[in-house]
Amino acid sequence: MALQPDMRLVGVVKARPDFKARSAISKGYPLFAPDAKAREDFQKAGLQTEGMLGDLLKQVDVVVDATPEGMGERNKKTYAGLGLRAVFEGGEEPSIADASFVAQVNYDESYGKSFVRCVSCNTTGLCRTLGALDSDFGVSKARAVMIRRAADPDEVRKGPIDSIVLDPATVPSHHGPDVNTVLPHIPVVTMAVKVPVTHMHLHALFVTLREKDVGIDDVLETFERTTRVLLVRDADGISSTSQLIEFARDLGRPRNDLYEVCVWRESVNIVDDEVCFFQGIHQEADVIPENIDAIRAVTMASNARESIDLTNKTLKILK
Amino acid sequence: MALQPDMRLVGVVKARPDFKARSAISKGYPLFAPDAKAREDFQKAGLQTEGMLGDLLKQVDVVVDATPEGMGERNKKTYAGLGLRAVFEGGEEPSIADASFVAQVNYDESYGKSFVRCVSCNTTGLCRTLGALDSDFGVSKARAVMIRRAADPDEVRKGPIDSIVLDPATVPSHHGPDVNTVLPHIPVVTMAVKVPVTHMHLHALFVTLREKDVGIDDVLETFERTTRVLLVRDADGISSTSQLIEFARDLGRPRNDLYEVCVWRESVNIVDDEVCFFQGIHQEADVIPENIDAIRAVTMASNARESIDLTNKTLKILK
Repeated sequence: MALQPDMRLVGVVKARPDFKARSAISKGYPLFAPDAKAREDFQKAGLQTEGMLGDLLKQVDVVVDATPEGMGERNKKTYAGLGLRAVFEGGEEPSIADASFVAQVNYDESYGKSFVRCVSCNTTGLCRTLGALDSDFGVSKARAVMIRRAADPDEVRKGPIDSIVLDPATVPSHHGPDVNTVLPHIPVVTMAVKVPVTHMHLHALFVTLREKDVGIDDVLETFERTTRVLLVRDADGISSTSQLIEFARDLGRPRNDLYEVCVWRESVNIVDDEVCFFQGIHQEADVIPENIDAIRAVTMASNARESIDLTNKTLKILK
Repeated sequence: MALQPDMRLVGVVKARPDFKARSAISKGYPLFAPDAKAREDFQKAGLQTEGMLGDLLKQVDVVVDATPEGMGERNKKTYAGLGLRAVFEGGEEPSIADASFVAQVNYDESYGKSFVRCVSCNTTGLCRTLGALDSDFGVSKARAVMIRRAADPDEVRKGPIDSIVLDPATVPSHHGPDVNTVLPHIPVVTMAVKVPVTHMHLHALFVTLREKDVGIDDVLETFERTTRVLLVRDADGISSTSQLIEFARDLGRPRNDLYEVCVWRESVNIVDDEVCFFQGIHQEADVIPENIDAIRAVTMASNARESIDLTNKTLKILK
């Protein structure tokens, strides 16, 4: 957000005076405490705060609420009371917001709305590629298996080690219904597991197209043309999630963020009337451009194309 | 094999005098060296051998060739020259054998044949459940994503650590065509990845049935009735591959072998005309009963039912 020419980062709120709070200060972002008790803790830890949440909320137009799952619902009352607009994250229930949001798919549905929810990283990734296929060929059915990273790199307490965990054991997982908050007309069934990996999710997809006689090259051409979708090559030595992250590191991305959904070129195949492919999702990164675009949508600052272009340019998104 | 009342384990061949060779001797299995050079190595290591491969081959009716991928093809010439029957493993090409084998699906095709190939653990698992569904309802299409353990527990040099690796990046993986060596009439597409796990493979399946109006209970009833397929419950605390292995350990299984394909009861769902479910495959174990049955098939010692029943009883397979 700090890179956007049309936005000002008024402040950030952190619950605890940890190394992330210290990072915010060292980057020059005004730091606020949730309440008086926390503010004391920050003071004791030698961290300068500019006030409390209430003080910050008086100065802003839009709140991006990235609190843990479920807390957004409680916070929403506060924001509504102050007449603020807010962007929530995918951990919240869809009902928290007036619209669920993936910029390149349904930006206009969030235009001028008070409360918008950026869907989760997995759902965002599914919507980008399914939305592109649907727009070009029509999608009559989608089936996806999500092999999820079990923990983010810094979550040292989370497991599993050496296990594949059903997440959940029931079918469908929540991702299918969540895709339908953005693309309501596509029948999607998803199954999800988590594995001892920290860096990315991987999706295996079987997508049935309405249009017949679509070739592999047509699908590749669609993905080539689609913003925030990147075609990567096994032949280039990218055959795993960790090599994608290495690629992001070599690009010089902050926090090795890979904002793009990465589709393996060699995996794209058509069997009968189904397109199959693998895609990689950087769980911490692909919703970052979405949050920025959502701010412009709720404030009616730009139309979809302008917002996406500006976000892409400032974040150096590859296409 | 040593547990079978109608078989005699004449001897085992090991290439190197390691702890596994020592285990064979301590269990009373006659040990043979592949050649004179290896026999010297065994002697130096203080391991008593009963002779060389050639000596052993003179005494046997059937060879179970569990050599590394591709070696079976070379060995086959030796066996053929001696008029021996042989059972090969799933790492070999289908063309090595007169038939590919999954006992409960196509035992009769291997009956009296000289060379039979037990398909891989993944293919065996797919054939058991797909075969059961096909037999009861007809399967018009199957789609499976295989989330593979990357290494066996003792393979300390293999990776990956913290990565999801496409295996391969192209679609389909070899498993679909391999299923067709046993169930040639089912259109199957498989996609495979490997993950940093040692204990089991996990499959996510979408299976389209020919018969319509099949209910979840009908599918559960089919799996309930199918030998070497076990329905397990998330509600019982089994929600991962590692808890399945813990279950096998508690059963007192040798080497915690889980010979059964384990289907999660809660995962069985029907969406439109597709059955979805998760199944777990113990990569080291599910082909063990198959190898035993294959020996009976090639020697025409029993029919399918008798062989499966005897193997199940001696290995304490649950059903």
